[in-house]
Amino acid sequence: MKRVKLKVAYDGTAYCGWQVQDNGETIEGVLNRELSRLLKEDIHVIGASRTDSGVHSLGNVCVFDTETRIPAEKIVYAINQRLPLDIRVIESTEVSPEFHPRHCRSVKTYEYRIWNDKFMNPTMRLYTKFCYYPIDVEKMRRAAVYLLGEHDFKSFCSVNTAVKSTVRTIYKIDIEKEGCLITIRIKGNGFLYNMVRIIAGSLLNVGMNLKKEESIKEMLEACDRQAAGPTAEACGLTMIGLQYIDGDDKAINSAQINHKNDIDTPDNVV
Amino acid sequence: MKRVKLKVAYDGTAYCGWQVQDNGETIEGVLNRELSRLLKEDIHVIGASRTDSGVHSLGNVCVFDTETRIPAEKIVYAINQRLPLDIRVIESTEVSPEFHPRHCRSVKTYEYRIWNDKFMNPTMRLYTKFCYYPIDVEKMRRAAVYLLGEHDFKSFCSVNTAVKSTVRTIYKIDIEKEGCLITIRIKGNGFLYNMVRIIAGSLLNVGMNLKKEESIKEMLEACDRQAAGPTAEACGLTMIGLQYIDGDDKAINSAQINHKNDIDTPDNVV
Repeated sequence: MKRVKLKVAYDGTAYCGWQVQDNGETIEGVLNRELSRLLKEDIHVIGASRTDSGVHSLGNVCVFDTETRIPAEKIVYAINQRLPLDIRVIESTEVSPEFHPRHCRSVKTYEYRIWNDKFMNPTMRLYTKFCYYPIDVEKMRRAAVYLLGEHDFKSFCSVNTAVKSTVRTIYKIDIEKEGCLITIRIKGNGFLYNMVRIIAGSLLNVGMNLKKEESIKEMLEACDRQAAGPTAEACGLTMIGLQYIDGDDKAINSAQINHKNDIDTPDNVV
Repeated sequence: MKRVKLKVAYDGTAYCGWQVQDNGETIEGVLNRELSRLLKEDIHVIGASRTDSGVHSLGNVCVFDTETRIPAEKIVYAINQRLPLDIRVIESTEVSPEFHPRHCRSVKTYEYRIWNDKFMNPTMRLYTKFCYYPIDVEKMRRAAVYLLGEHDFKSFCSVNTAVKSTVRTIYKIDIEKEGCLITIRIKGNGFLYNMVRIIAGSLLNVGMNLKKEESIKEMLEACDRQAAGPTAEACGLTMIGLQYIDGDDKAINSAQINHKNDIDTPDNVV
């Protein structure tokens, strides 16, 4: 028995998000099915970030346990033969049996991308949010500073989540503009449900001059979802990747895999 | 009666190319149908570049004649309400009744994009060609110099086309690498059927060290399609736009619109 860690990139357009559900195909569902067929075992992956419907990723992480004698680093090639082209495994490695993709400390990076032009670029429509109004990127950058550091992000979390704590730390927010493409890149130790999309919606309101820079500070202080801006569309969000602070092969938190608990843990559902 | 010029951007993934045909939806077909419904007339657009199935555009040009009293520059807003999101009209202007999108002299710009990494990025798969092998971009740049200027591009033209002359002029080829994305940007006075894709396939063979730089010169001299490289996949090609040398509103060549001739003209089918 060994634990294998996969790095997975996907175009979320055609999927009902990461997590297995009854009413449609999911990334987790496709991985479970194709890994089970490949390894001739009943495989259940555990993902680091359970991205929402329409959200993309360039480096989500998941693990699974297997009895296979295929070396872990060869699995990447075998599984890609079976996966649809909108899901690619980009790395497979063996990790410690105690390694858990959500319980181990990590820095997570997300990008929210906006296409800011008079008309949508059709080739970008599935990977950016369209915004017609002029956006003041400098003003967004100044507003973003209020979000840096450790805060209670309750205002930036969709209701109906039962997390123990809504305190998270944002290490860095970069906002870049290149032609019509505005990219908000956020690094943090964890993100609440819809947190990046609500931050993007709130910063956009500032950028469009609908709100003042200081409104972001007020939103944080309110600890109330009503105080923050709208949840920006899923298609603009891409999970870039995560970096495990203590390395992948060390057990920082020796949590046992428990599928019941796994489903109930609401953190990192973005 | 007035002649209206449209600038059109589209994601070619879901279409059987520009030109109307029996066996599937085309960009021209959708524009004809939706403009006819909007203007309550039988509208037939004439396109500048009849892109192939799967090829994209950020600024193709077409014209049509209409009796409508709607000002030309307002049509862009009305038609986008009716078009699918993978086709966007980005400009509508009135032009001289003699203006013809293919017969007026222009500089055309195309981009061929390659994703050069160990694995395909799923969010780029519809807009780039995937190439696993290491590519020597500097070598491609040196090879591309042979293509500059006026040449007989017969080797770089798909057979089964009946153009009078296969002589064209390439003004500029820029090859850029940004991360995993390699972009070949070509400007010319006109392109033969599949010419940009055959140039991309040939330059890629040089970049992958399958061919010498000088092979491009030999391919040109051979005047034989067999001598050049493969036709690179359609999805990597984007028609960026065209610039009319004498302006849009002047009749450089007062060719009358003739739908029979239009279908038979094989130039600018890319």
